[in-house]
Amino acid sequence: MILKDLGEFNFIKRISALTSVSKCVIKGIGDDAAVLKGAGGRYTLFTSDMLVEGRHFKRNAGGYLIGKKSLSASVSDIAAMGGWPGACVVSLGAPPSLDVKFVDGIYKGLRAVSRKYKIDLVGGDTVASEKIIINVALLGEVEKDNLTLRGGAKTGDAIFVTGSIGGSLAGSHLDFSPRLEEARSLVNNFKVNSMIDVSDGLLADLGHILEASGKGAVLYEKNVPVSKKAKDFNSAVTDGEDFELVFTLPEKDAGRLERAWRFKTNLSRIGCISAKGRELIIIDKSGAKKKIKPRGYKHF
Amino acid sequence: MILKDLGEFNFIKRISALTSVSKCVIKGIGDDAAVLKGAGGRYTLFTSDMLVEGRHFKRNAGGYLIGKKSLSASVSDIAAMGGWPGACVVSLGAPPSLDVKFVDGIYKGLRAVSRKYKIDLVGGDTVASEKIIINVALLGEVEKDNLTLRGGAKTGDAIFVTGSIGGSLAGSHLDFSPRLEEARSLVNNFKVNSMIDVSDGLLADLGHILEASGKGAVLYEKNVPVSKKAKDFNSAVTDGEDFELVFTLPEKDAGRLERAWRFKTNLSRIGCISAKGRELIIIDKSGAKKKIKPRGYKHF
Repeated sequence: MILKDLGEFNFIKRISALTSVSKCVIKGIGDDAAVLKGAGGRYTLFTSDMLVEGRHFKRNAGGYLIGKKSLSASVSDIAAMGGWPGACVVSLGAPPSLDVKFVDGIYKGLRAVSRKYKIDLVGGDTVASEKIIINVALLGEVEKDNLTLRGGAKTGDAIFVTGSIGGSLAGSHLDFSPRLEEARSLVNNFKVNSMIDVSDGLLADLGHILEASGKGAVLYEKNVPVSKKAKDFNSAVTDGEDFELVFTLPEKDAGRLERAWRFKTNLSRIGCISAKGRELIIIDKSGAKKKIKPRGYKHF
Repeated sequence: MILKDLGEFNFIKRISALTSVSKCVIKGIGDDAAVLKGAGGRYTLFTSDMLVEGRHFKRNAGGYLIGKKSLSASVSDIAAMGGWPGACVVSLGAPPSLDVKFVDGIYKGLRAVSRKYKIDLVGGDTVASEKIIINVALLGEVEKDNLTLRGGAKTGDAIFVTGSIGGSLAGSHLDFSPRLEEARSLVNNFKVNSMIDVSDGLLADLGHILEASGKGAVLYEKNVPVSKKAKDFNSAVTDGEDFELVFTLPEKDAGRLERAWRFKTNLSRIGCISAKGRELIIIDKSGAKKKIKPRGYKHF
Protein backbone atom coordinates (compact mmCIF):
# COMPACT_ATOMS: atom_id res chain seq x y z
CA MET A 1 0.00 0.00 0.00
CA ILE A 2 1.19 3.52 -0.79
CA LEU A 3 0.73 6.69 1.28
CA LYS A 4 -1.88 8.08 -1.09
CA ASP A 5 -4.14 5.04 -0.58
CA LEU A 6 -3.75 5.16 3.18
CA GLY A 7 -4.53 8.89 3.29
CA GLU A 8 -3.01 11.60 5.43
CA PHE A 9 -5.38 11.35 8.39
CA ASN A 10 -5.16 7.55 8.60
CA PHE A 11 -1.40 7.95 8.37
CA ILE A 12 -1.39 10.31 11.37
CA LYS A 13 -3.48 7.80 13.35
CA ARG A 14 -1.03 5.06 12.42
CA ILE A 15 1.97 7.08 13.61
CA SER A 16 0.12 7.96 16.77
CA ALA A 17 -0.46 4.27 17.53
CA LEU A 18 3.26 3.56 17.01
CA THR A 19 4.19 6.18 19.57
CA SER A 20 4.05 5.99 23.34
CA VAL A 21 4.80 8.95 25.56
CA SER A 22 5.73 9.72 29.14
CA LYS A 23 3.80 11.44 31.91
CA CYS A 24 5.33 14.78 30.87
CA VAL A 25 3.02 14.78 27.85
CA ILE A 26 -0.51 16.13 28.40
CA LYS A 27 -1.47 15.80 24.73
CA GLY A 28 0.72 14.21 22.04
CA ILE A 29 0.06 13.70 18.33
CA GLY A 30 -3.37 14.78 17.11
CA ASP A 31 -4.06 18.41 18.02
CA ASP A 32 -2.87 21.76 16.64
CA ALA A 33 0.12 21.61 18.99
CA ALA A 34 1.50 19.16 21.53
CA VAL A 35 0.94 19.98 25.20
CA LEU A 36 3.74 19.34 27.71
CA LYS A 37 4.00 19.89 31.43
CA GLY A 38 5.31 23.39 32.03
CA ALA A 39 6.32 25.64 34.89
CA GLY A 40 4.28 28.04 37.04
CA GLY A 41 0.73 26.76 36.40
CA ARG A 42 1.26 26.73 32.66
CA TYR A 43 1.59 24.15 29.96
CA THR A 44 4.24 24.26 27.24
CA LEU A 45 2.95 24.06 23.64
CA PHE A 46 5.09 22.68 20.81
CA THR A 47 4.23 22.67 17.10
CA SER A 48 6.02 22.08 13.80
CA ASP A 49 4.99 23.09 10.26
CA MET A 50 6.76 22.24 7.03
CA LEU A 51 6.14 24.35 3.92
CA VAL A 52 7.30 23.04 0.56
CA GLU A 53 7.68 25.02 -2.65
CA GLY A 54 5.03 24.05 -5.19
CA ARG A 55 2.65 22.84 -2.47
CA HIS A 56 2.34 25.69 0.01
CA PHE A 57 3.77 28.50 -2.10
CA LYS A 58 5.23 29.30 -5.47
CA ARG A 59 8.61 30.95 -5.75
CA ASN A 60 7.10 33.98 -7.46
CA ALA A 61 5.28 34.83 -4.23
CA GLY A 62 8.62 36.32 -3.15
CA GLY A 63 10.69 35.57 -0.06
CA TYR A 64 8.88 38.00 2.24
CA LEU A 65 5.42 36.43 1.96
CA ILE A 66 6.88 32.91 2.09
CA GLY A 67 8.67 33.70 5.35
CA LYS A 68 5.61 35.47 6.74
CA LYS A 69 3.34 32.53 5.95
CA SER A 70 5.64 29.93 7.44
CA LEU A 71 5.76 31.50 10.90
CA SER A 72 2.15 32.74 10.81
CA ALA A 73 0.90 29.18 10.22
CA SER A 74 2.65 28.03 13.40
CA VAL A 75 1.33 31.01 15.39
CA SER A 76 -2.15 30.01 14.20
CA ASP A 77 -1.60 26.53 15.72
CA ILE A 78 -0.61 28.01 19.07
CA ALA A 79 -3.60 30.37 18.97
CA ALA A 80 -5.92 27.42 18.37
CA MET A 81 -4.72 25.88 21.66
CA GLY A 82 -5.58 29.08 23.54
CA GLY A 83 -1.93 29.95 24.11
CA TRP A 84 0.69 32.48 23.08
CA PRO A 85 3.95 31.87 21.17
CA GLY A 86 7.49 31.96 22.58
CA ALA A 87 10.67 30.84 20.75
CA CYS A 88 11.05 29.24 17.32
CA VAL A 89 13.71 27.44 15.31
CA VAL A 90 13.63 27.56 11.51
CA SER A 91 15.14 25.01 9.13
CA LEU A 92 15.63 26.22 5.59
CA GLY A 93 16.29 24.07 2.55
CA ALA A 94 17.29 26.15 -0.48
CA PRO A 95 19.05 25.74 -3.83
CA PRO A 96 22.68 26.97 -3.72
CA SER A 97 21.85 29.02 -6.83
CA LEU A 98 19.15 31.00 -5.02
CA ASP A 99 19.69 34.75 -4.82
CA VAL A 100 20.73 35.85 -1.33
CA LYS A 101 18.20 38.71 -1.59
CA PHE A 102 15.43 36.15 -1.89
CA VAL A 103 16.57 34.45 1.31
CA ASP A 104 16.92 37.82 3.04
CA GLY A 105 13.29 38.34 2.08
CA ILE A 106 12.29 35.08 3.76
CA TYR A 107 13.98 36.18 6.99
CA LYS A 108 12.44 39.65 6.77
CA GLY A 109 9.03 37.97 6.51
CA LEU A 110 9.86 35.78 9.49
CA ARG A 111 11.05 38.81 11.41
CA ALA A 112 7.91 40.82 10.69
CA VAL A 113 5.82 38.08 12.29
CA SER A 114 8.25 37.40 15.13
CA ARG A 115 8.31 41.10 16.07
CA LYS A 116 4.55 41.46 15.95
CA TYR A 117 4.00 38.51 18.29
CA LYS A 118 7.20 38.86 20.36
CA ILE A 119 8.60 35.54 19.18
CA ASP A 120 12.33 34.80 19.54
CA LEU A 121 13.93 33.22 16.46
CA VAL A 122 16.70 31.32 18.24
CA GLY A 123 18.19 28.86 15.78
CA GLY A 124 17.66 26.36 13.03
CA ASP A 125 19.39 24.58 10.22
CA THR A 126 20.35 25.29 6.62
CA VAL A 127 20.61 22.63 3.94
CA ALA A 128 20.91 22.56 0.19
CA SER A 129 17.80 21.30 -1.60
CA GLU A 130 16.31 21.61 -5.05
CA LYS A 131 13.02 23.04 -3.81
CA ILE A 132 12.69 25.72 -1.15
CA ILE A 133 11.57 24.09 2.10
CA ILE A 134 10.89 25.88 5.37
CA ASN A 135 10.21 24.14 8.66
CA VAL A 136 9.18 26.23 11.65
CA ALA A 137 9.08 24.63 15.10
CA LEU A 138 7.44 26.95 17.61
CA LEU A 139 7.09 26.80 21.37
CA GLY A 140 4.23 28.42 23.22
CA GLU A 141 2.62 28.59 26.61
CA VAL A 142 -0.91 28.46 27.93
CA GLU A 143 -2.46 28.77 31.39
CA LYS A 144 -3.82 25.37 32.44
CA ASP A 145 -7.38 26.73 32.57
CA ASN A 146 -7.15 28.20 29.10
CA LEU A 147 -5.92 25.12 27.25
CA THR A 148 -8.42 24.38 24.48
CA LEU A 149 -8.29 21.05 22.65
CA ARG A 150 -10.16 19.65 19.67
CA GLY A 151 -11.81 17.00 21.76
CA GLY A 152 -13.91 19.05 24.18
CA ALA A 153 -17.01 19.91 22.12
CA LYS A 154 -20.27 19.30 24.06
CA THR A 155 -23.73 18.50 22.72
CA GLY A 156 -25.62 21.75 22.23
CA ASP A 157 -22.50 23.90 21.86
CA ALA A 158 -22.77 26.77 19.41
CA ILE A 159 -20.19 26.60 16.59
CA PHE A 160 -18.44 29.82 15.59
CA VAL A 161 -15.92 30.73 12.93
CA THR A 162 -13.84 33.90 12.65
CA GLY A 163 -13.30 35.92 9.46
CA SER A 164 -14.37 34.53 6.10
CA ILE A 165 -13.83 31.15 4.52
CA GLY A 166 -12.64 30.19 1.03
CA GLY A 167 -10.71 31.80 -1.78
CA SER A 168 -7.40 31.63 0.08
CA LEU A 169 -5.61 30.69 -3.14
CA ALA A 170 -6.29 34.22 -4.39
CA GLY A 171 -3.65 35.40 -1.95
CA SER A 172 -4.78 35.24 1.67
CA HIS A 173 -3.08 31.84 2.19
CA LEU A 174 0.23 33.75 1.97
CA ASP A 175 -0.74 36.97 3.68
CA PHE A 176 -2.95 36.46 6.71
CA SER A 177 -3.03 37.44 10.36
CA PRO A 178 -3.20 34.48 12.70
CA ARG A 179 -6.11 35.00 15.11
CA LEU A 180 -3.95 35.16 18.21
CA GLU A 181 -5.54 38.17 19.92
CA GLU A 182 -9.01 36.85 19.16
CA ALA A 183 -8.17 33.42 20.60
CA ARG A 184 -6.60 34.89 23.74
CA SER A 185 -9.62 37.11 24.32
CA LEU A 186 -11.92 34.12 23.83
CA VAL A 187 -10.18 31.80 26.28
CA ASN A 188 -9.74 34.58 28.83
CA ASN A 189 -13.43 35.54 28.83
CA PHE A 190 -15.38 32.44 27.83
CA LYS A 191 -15.47 28.73 28.43
CA VAL A 192 -14.41 27.60 24.96
CA ASN A 193 -14.99 23.83 24.80
CA SER A 194 -13.09 23.09 21.59
CA MET A 195 -11.06 24.99 19.01
CA ILE A 196 -9.02 24.35 15.84
CA ASP A 197 -7.58 26.53 13.09
CA VAL A 198 -8.79 26.08 9.53
CA SER A 199 -5.86 24.69 7.58
CA ASP A 200 -7.34 21.63 5.84
CA GLY A 201 -10.70 23.33 5.17
CA LEU A 202 -13.72 24.24 7.30
CA LEU A 203 -15.46 20.88 6.88
CA ALA A 204 -12.31 18.82 7.45
CA ASP A 205 -11.24 20.83 10.48
CA LEU A 206 -14.71 20.84 12.02
CA GLY A 207 -14.57 17.10 11.27
CA HIS A 208 -11.41 16.86 13.41
CA ILE A 209 -13.32 18.46 16.30
CA LEU A 210 -16.24 16.06 15.81
CA GLU A 211 -14.00 13.01 15.66
CA ALA A 212 -11.93 14.00 18.69
CA SER A 213 -15.08 14.89 20.66
CA GLY A 214 -17.23 11.95 19.50
CA LYS A 215 -19.95 14.38 18.44
CA GLY A 216 -21.88 15.44 15.35
CA ALA A 217 -22.81 18.88 14.04
CA VAL A 218 -25.49 20.77 12.14
CA LEU A 219 -24.25 23.61 9.93
CA TYR A 220 -26.36 26.33 8.31
CA GLU A 221 -25.00 27.16 4.85
CA LYS A 222 -26.56 30.65 5.01
CA ASN A 223 -24.53 31.45 8.11
CA VAL A 224 -21.14 30.34 6.77
CA PRO A 225 -19.14 33.47 5.95
CA VAL A 226 -18.03 32.57 2.42
CA SER A 227 -15.35 34.90 1.05
CA LYS A 228 -16.15 36.91 -2.07
CA LYS A 229 -13.03 35.38 -3.55
CA ALA A 230 -14.29 31.81 -3.21
CA LYS A 231 -15.57 30.03 -6.32
CA ASP A 232 -18.59 28.61 -4.51
CA PHE A 233 -19.72 27.23 -1.16
CA ASN A 234 -18.27 23.76 -1.76
CA SER A 235 -14.80 24.97 -2.63
CA ALA A 236 -14.90 27.53 0.19
CA VAL A 237 -15.43 24.88 2.84
CA THR A 238 -12.90 22.39 1.44
CA ASP A 239 -9.97 24.35 -0.09
CA GLY A 240 -8.26 25.07 3.23
CA GLU A 241 -5.51 27.44 4.40
CA ASP A 242 -8.00 30.00 5.69
CA PHE A 243 -6.20 30.14 9.04
CA GLU A 244 -9.39 31.22 10.77
CA LEU A 245 -10.54 29.75 14.09
CA VAL A 246 -13.43 27.33 14.45
CA PHE A 247 -14.57 26.89 18.03
CA THR A 248 -17.50 25.77 20.11
CA LEU A 249 -18.91 27.04 23.38
CA PRO A 250 -22.08 26.51 25.44
CA GLU A 251 -25.24 27.78 23.72
CA LYS A 252 -26.05 29.95 26.75
CA ASP A 253 -22.82 31.95 26.23
CA ALA A 254 -23.30 32.51 22.50
CA GLY A 255 -25.29 35.74 22.81
CA ARG A 256 -22.88 37.23 25.34
CA LEU A 257 -19.99 36.43 22.99
CA GLU A 258 -21.69 38.09 20.02
CA ARG A 259 -22.39 41.20 22.05
CA ALA A 260 -18.88 41.34 23.50
CA TRP A 261 -17.01 40.82 20.20
CA ARG A 262 -14.86 43.92 19.60
CA PHE A 263 -12.49 42.75 16.85
CA LYS A 264 -12.41 43.91 13.23
CA THR A 265 -12.42 40.24 12.28
CA ASN A 266 -15.98 39.01 11.72
CA LEU A 267 -17.52 36.40 13.95
CA SER A 268 -20.15 34.01 12.57
CA ARG A 269 -22.31 31.50 14.39
CA ILE A 270 -22.59 28.73 11.86
CA GLY A 271 -24.29 25.84 13.65
CA CYS A 272 -24.40 23.62 16.70
CA ILE A 273 -22.92 20.42 18.05
CA SER A 274 -25.18 17.36 18.14
CA ALA A 275 -24.97 14.11 20.05
CA LYS A 276 -24.84 12.05 16.85
CA GLY A 277 -21.27 10.75 16.68
CA ARG A 278 -19.36 12.19 13.74
CA GLU A 279 -22.49 12.99 11.72
CA LEU A 280 -22.20 16.27 9.85
CA ILE A 281 -25.43 17.74 8.50
CA ILE A 282 -25.67 20.86 6.37
CA ILE A 283 -28.92 22.79 6.06
CA ASP A 284 -28.66 24.42 2.64
CA LYS A 285 -30.12 27.78 1.66
CA SER A 286 -33.43 26.19 0.61
CA GLY A 287 -33.72 24.59 4.06
CA ALA A 288 -32.95 21.08 2.82
CA LYS A 289 -30.87 18.75 5.00
CA LYS A 290 -27.77 17.06 3.56
CA LYS A 291 -25.67 14.54 5.39
CA ILE A 292 -22.08 14.97 4.27
CA LYS A 293 -18.62 13.62 4.91
CA PRO A 294 -16.12 16.03 6.44
CA ARG A 295 -13.57 16.48 3.69
CA GLY A 296 -10.87 18.91 2.73
CA TYR A 297 -7.32 19.22 1.57
CA LYS A 298 -5.25 16.09 2.06
CA HIS A 299 -1.56 15.96 1.31
CA PHE A 300 -1.87 12.31 0.33
CA MET B 1 24.94 37.24 -5.20
CA ILE B 2 23.75 33.65 -4.82
CA LEU B 3 23.80 31.50 -1.66
CA LYS B 4 26.70 29.40 -2.92
CA ASP B 5 28.94 32.47 -3.23
CA LEU B 6 27.98 33.75 0.20
CA GLY B 7 28.64 30.36 1.80
CA GLU B 8 26.72 28.59 4.53
CA PHE B 9 28.62 30.00 7.50
CA ASN B 10 28.45 33.59 6.25
CA PHE B 11 24.79 33.02 5.62
CA ILE B 12 24.25 31.95 9.23
CA LYS B 13 26.08 35.08 10.44
CA ARG B 14 23.87 37.19 8.19
CA ILE B 15 20.67 35.66 9.57
CA SER B 16 21.98 36.08 13.07
CA ALA B 17 22.56 39.80 12.47
CA LEU B 18 18.98 40.16 11.16
CA THR B 19 17.58 38.64 14.34
CA SER B 20 17.13 40.22 17.75
CA VAL B 21 15.98 38.27 20.75
CA SER B 22 14.47 38.87 24.18
CA LYS B 23 15.89 38.36 27.66
CA CYS B 24 14.46 34.83 27.71
CA VAL B 25 17.22 33.78 25.29
CA ILE B 26 20.55 32.85 26.84
CA LYS B 27 22.10 31.80 23.50
CA GLY B 28 20.40 32.21 20.13
CA ILE B 29 21.63 31.32 16.64
CA GLY B 30 25.19 29.98 16.47
CA ASP B 31 25.60 26.95 18.74
CA ASP B 32 24.54 23.31 18.55
CA ALA B 33 21.24 24.23 20.17
CA ALA B 34 19.57 27.40 21.37
CA VAL B 35 19.52 28.03 25.13
CA LEU B 36 16.40 29.48 26.76
CA LYS B 37 15.53 30.34 30.34
CA GLY B 38 14.05 27.27 31.98
CA ALA B 39 12.55 26.20 35.27
CA GLY B 40 14.15 24.83 38.45
CA GLY B 41 17.77 25.88 37.95
CA ARG B 42 17.86 24.52 34.41
CA TYR B 43 18.01 25.91 30.93
CA THR B 44 15.81 24.71 28.07
CA LEU B 45 17.65 23.61 24.90
CA PHE B 46 16.01 23.77 21.46
CA THR B 47 17.44 22.45 18.20
CA SER B 48 16.20 21.70 14.68
CA ASP B 49 17.75 19.47 11.98
CA MET B 50 16.51 19.01 8.44
CA LEU B 51 17.55 15.92 6.48
CA VAL B 52 16.94 15.86 2.74
CA GLU B 53 17.01 12.81 0.47
CA GLY B 54 20.05 12.83 -1.80
CA ARG B 55 22.02 15.04 0.62
CA HIS B 56 21.85 13.31 3.98
CA PHE B 57 20.68 9.89 2.88
CA LYS B 58 19.71 7.86 -0.15
CA ARG B 59 16.38 6.13 -0.28
CA ASN B 60 18.04 2.71 -0.51
CA ALA B 61 19.32 3.19 3.05
CA GLY B 62 15.82 2.11 4.08
CA GLY B 63 13.32 3.89 6.30
CA TYR B 64 14.66 2.56 9.58
CA LEU B 65 18.17 4.01 9.28
CA ILE B 66 16.83 7.27 7.87
CA GLY B 67 14.53 7.68 10.88
CA LYS B 68 17.30 6.67 13.27
CA LYS B 69 19.75 9.16 11.80
CA SER B 70 17.31 12.06 11.84
CA LEU B 71 16.61 11.89 15.57
CA SER B 72 20.15 10.81 16.52
CA ALA B 73 21.59 13.92 14.84
CA SER B 74 19.41 16.13 17.06
CA VAL B 75 20.31 14.15 20.18
CA SER B 76 23.97 14.74 19.28
CA ASP B 77 23.29 18.50 19.27
CA ILE B 78 21.73 18.35 22.75
CA ALA B 79 24.66 16.21 24.00
CA ALA B 80 27.14 18.80 22.69
CA MET B 81 25.48 21.41 24.97
CA GLY B 82 25.94 19.16 28.00
CA GLY B 83 22.21 18.44 28.30
CA TRP B 84 19.71 15.66 27.86
CA PRO B 85 16.81 15.42 25.39
CA GLY B 86 13.09 15.75 26.17
CA ALA B 87 10.28 16.01 23.61
CA CYS B 88 10.48 16.21 19.82
CA VAL B 89 8.22 17.06 16.89
CA VAL B 90 8.86 15.54 13.47
CA SER B 91 7.83 16.96 10.11
CA LEU B 92 7.85 14.52 7.22
CA GLY B 93 7.75 15.36 3.54
CA ALA B 94 7.15 12.28 1.39
CA PRO B 95 5.92 11.37 -2.10
CA PRO B 96 2.29 10.16 -2.10
CA SER B 97 3.52 7.13 -4.06
CA LEU B 98 5.87 6.04 -1.25
CA ASP B 99 5.17 2.62 0.25
CA VAL B 100 3.58 2.86 3.69
CA LYS B 101 6.04 0.21 4.91
CA PHE B 102 8.91 2.54 4.11
CA VAL B 103 7.33 5.27 6.23
CA ASP B 104 6.62 2.78 9.02
CA GLY B 105 10.35 2.05 8.89
CA ILE B 106 11.17 5.73 9.37
CA TYR B 107 8.96 5.86 12.48
CA LYS B 108 10.41 2.60 13.80
CA GLY B 109 13.87 4.15 13.47
CA LEU B 110 12.67 7.28 15.25
CA ARG B 111 11.09 5.15 17.95
CA ALA B 112 14.24 3.09 18.52
CA VAL B 113 16.14 6.29 19.29
CA SER B 114 13.32 7.91 21.26
CA ARG B 115 13.01 4.84 23.49
CA LYS B 116 16.73 4.57 24.09
CA TYR B 117 17.00 8.18 25.22
CA LYS B 118 13.51 8.52 26.75
CA ILE B 119 12.41 11.13 24.22
CA ASP B 120 8.69 11.84 23.71
CA LEU B 121 7.63 12.13 20.07
CA VAL B 122 4.68 14.46 20.55
CA GLY B 123 3.68 15.78 17.17
CA GLY B 124 4.72 17.09 13.80
CA ASP B 125 3.49 17.65 10.30
CA THR B 126 3.06 15.62 7.12
CA VAL B 127 3.30 17.08 3.64
CA ALA B 128 3.57 15.75 0.11
CA SER B 129 6.96 16.35 -1.51
CA GLU B 130 8.96 14.85 -4.33
CA LYS B 131 11.97 14.06 -2.15
CA ILE B 132 11.80 12.57 1.33
CA ILE B 133 12.47 15.32 3.87
CA ILE B 134 12.57 14.91 7.64
CA ASN B 135 12.79 17.74 10.11
CA VAL B 136 13.29 16.95 13.78
CA ALA B 137 12.90 19.72 16.35
CA LEU B 138 14.07 18.55 19.77
CA LEU B 139 13.83 20.11 23.21
CA GLY B 140 16.35 19.37 25.95
CA GLU B 141 17.38 20.52 29.38
CA VAL B 142 20.68 21.23 31.06
CA GLU B 143 21.64 22.29 34.59
CA LYS B 144 22.92 25.87 34.49
CA ASP B 145 26.38 24.77 35.67
CA ASN B 146 26.65 22.10 33.00
CA LEU B 147 25.81 24.24 29.97
CA THR B 148 28.74 23.97 27.54
CA LEU B 149 28.99 26.38 24.63
CA ARG B 150 31.33 26.61 21.66
CA GLY B 151 32.74 29.91 22.84
CA GLY B 152 34.37 28.94 26.14
CA ALA B 153 37.74 27.49 25.04
CA LYS B 154 40.67 28.85 27.10
CA THR B 155 44.31 29.22 26.11
CA GLY B 156 46.16 26.09 27.16
CA ASP B 157 43.06 23.85 27.13
CA ALA B 158 43.63 20.28 26.00
CA ILE B 159 41.53 19.32 22.96
CA PHE B 160 39.84 15.91 22.97
CA VAL B 161 37.74 14.00 20.48
CA THR B 162 35.62 10.89 21.10
CA GLY B 163 35.55 7.81 18.85
CA SER B 164 37.16 7.89 15.43
CA ILE B 165 36.95 10.42 12.63
CA GLY B 166 36.36 9.97 8.91
CA GLY B 167 34.85 7.36 6.62
CA SER B 168 31.30 8.12 7.76
CA LEU B 169 30.03 7.76 4.19
CA ALA B 170 30.81 4.02 4.47
CA GLY B 171 27.76 3.78 6.71
CA SER B 172 28.33 5.30 10.14
CA HIS B 173 26.69 8.60 9.10
CA LEU B 174 23.41 6.65 9.09
CA ASP B 175 23.98 4.31 12.00
CA PHE B 176 25.72 5.97 14.93
CA SER B 177 25.21 6.43 18.64
CA PRO B 178 25.10 10.06 19.72
CA ARG B 179 27.59 10.56 22.56
CA LEU B 180 24.98 11.49 25.13
CA GLU B 181 26.18 9.39 28.07
CA GLU B 182 29.77 10.43 27.42
CA ALA B 183 28.83 14.11 27.31
CA ARG B 184 26.74 13.89 30.49
CA SER B 185 29.56 12.14 32.32
CA LEU B 186 32.00 14.79 31.11
CA VAL B 187 29.97 17.80 32.21
CA ASN B 188 29.06 16.16 35.52
CA ASN B 189 32.67 15.39 36.44
CA PHE B 190 34.86 17.95 34.67
CA LYS B 191 34.97 21.60 33.87
CA VAL B 192 34.49 21.34 30.11
CA ASN B 193 35.21 24.77 28.64
CA SER B 194 33.84 24.22 25.13
CA MET B 195 32.18 21.44 23.17
CA ILE B 196 30.67 20.78 19.72
CA ASP B 197 29.61 17.71 17.80
CA VAL B 198 31.36 16.83 14.56
CA SER B 199 28.81 17.32 11.81
CA ASP B 200 30.63 19.55 9.29
CA GLY B 201 34.00 17.82 9.82
CA LEU B 202 36.63 17.86 12.58
CA LEU B 203 38.50 20.89 11.21
CA ALA B 204 35.38 22.90 10.48
CA ASP B 205 33.79 22.14 13.84
CA LEU B 206 36.98 22.81 15.79
CA GLY B 207 37.07 25.99 13.69
CA HIS B 208 33.62 26.92 15.05
CA ILE B 209 35.01 26.56 18.59
CA LEU B 210 38.04 28.71 17.72
CA GLU B 211 35.95 31.40 16.09
CA ALA B 212 33.41 31.54 18.92
CA SER B 213 36.20 31.53 21.54
CA GLY B 214 38.58 33.91 19.72
CA LYS B 215 41.36 31.34 20.07
CA GLY B 216 43.73 29.26 17.94
CA ALA B 217 44.73 25.61 18.15
CA VAL B 218 47.60 23.23 17.54
CA LEU B 219 46.61 19.73 16.39
CA TYR B 220 48.86 16.67 16.23
CA GLU B 221 48.05 14.57 13.18
CA LYS B 222 49.46 11.44 14.84
CA ASN B 223 46.96 11.77 17.68
CA VAL B 224 43.85 12.22 15.51
CA PRO B 225 41.89 8.94 15.62
CA VAL B 226 41.38 8.43 11.88
CA SER B 227 38.87 5.68 11.08
CA LYS B 228 40.11 2.68 9.07
CA LYS B 229 37.27 3.46 6.69
CA ALA B 230 38.59 6.93 5.88
CA LYS B 231 40.37 7.48 2.56
CA ASP B 232 43.13 9.55 4.15
CA PHE B 233 43.74 12.12 6.88
CA ASN B 234 42.53 15.05 4.81
CA SER B 235 39.20 13.51 3.93
CA ALA B 236 38.79 12.19 7.49
CA VAL B 237 38.99 15.67 9.00
CA THR B 238 36.79 17.37 6.41
CA ASP B 239 34.08 14.89 5.30
CA GLY B 240 31.86 15.40 8.34
CA GLU B 241 28.87 13.57 9.85
CA ASP B 242 31.06 11.73 12.38
CA PHE B 243 28.74 12.82 15.22
CA GLU B 244 31.60 12.55 17.69
CA LEU B 245 32.27 15.18 20.35
CA VAL B 246 35.15 17.65 20.22
CA PHE B 247 35.73 19.42 23.52
CA THR B 248 38.34 21.31 25.47
CA LEU B 249 39.18 21.41 29.15
CA PRO B 250 42.02 22.77 31.31
CA GLU B 251 45.35 21.02 30.70
CA LYS B 252 45.63 20.17 34.40
CA ASP B 253 42.47 18.01 34.19
CA ALA B 254 43.50 16.13 31.05
CA GLY B 255 45.31 13.30 32.85
CA ARG B 256 42.48 12.77 35.34
CA LEU B 257 40.02 12.57 32.45
CA GLU B 258 42.10 9.99 30.61
CA ARG B 259 42.40 7.84 33.73
CA ALA B 260 38.70 8.16 34.58
CA TRP B 261 37.38 7.38 31.08
CA ARG B 262 35.26 4.20 31.35
CA PHE B 263 33.40 4.22 28.04
CA LYS B 264 33.83 1.79 25.15
CA THR B 265 34.08 4.84 22.89
CA ASN B 266 37.73 5.86 22.48
CA LEU B 267 38.97 9.16 23.80
CA SER B 268 41.86 10.94 22.05
CA ARG B 269 43.77 14.01 23.11
CA ILE B 270 44.54 15.65 19.80
CA GLY B 271 46.04 19.05 20.62
CA CYS B 272 45.72 22.24 22.60
CA ILE B 273 44.15 25.68 22.42
CA SER B 274 46.47 28.60 21.70
CA ALA B 275 46.08 32.34 22.22
CA LYS B 276 46.48 33.05 18.49
CA GLY B 277 43.03 34.08 17.33
CA ARG B 278 41.55 31.60 14.85
CA GLU B 279 44.95 30.22 13.79
CA LEU B 280 44.83 26.47 13.25
CA ILE B 281 48.19 24.68 13.07
CA ILE B 282 48.65 21.00 12.32
CA ILE B 283 51.85 19.20 13.26
CA ASP B 284 52.08 16.41 10.69
CA LYS B 285 53.56 12.97 11.26
CA SER B 286 57.03 14.15 10.23
CA GLY B 287 56.86 16.93 12.84
CA ALA B 288 56.39 19.70 10.27
CA LYS B 289 54.05 22.63 11.07
CA LYS B 290 51.29 23.56 8.64
CA LYS B 291 49.01 26.53 9.06
CA ILE B 292 45.61 25.60 7.66
CA LYS B 293 42.13 26.98 7.19
CA PRO B 294 39.36 25.24 9.10
CA ARG B 295 37.27 23.70 6.36
CA GLY B 296 34.68 21.00 5.96
CA TYR B 297 31.33 20.20 4.48
CA LYS B 298 29.31 23.22 3.44
CA HIS B 299 25.79 22.96 2.14
CA PHE B 300 26.36 25.99 -0.04
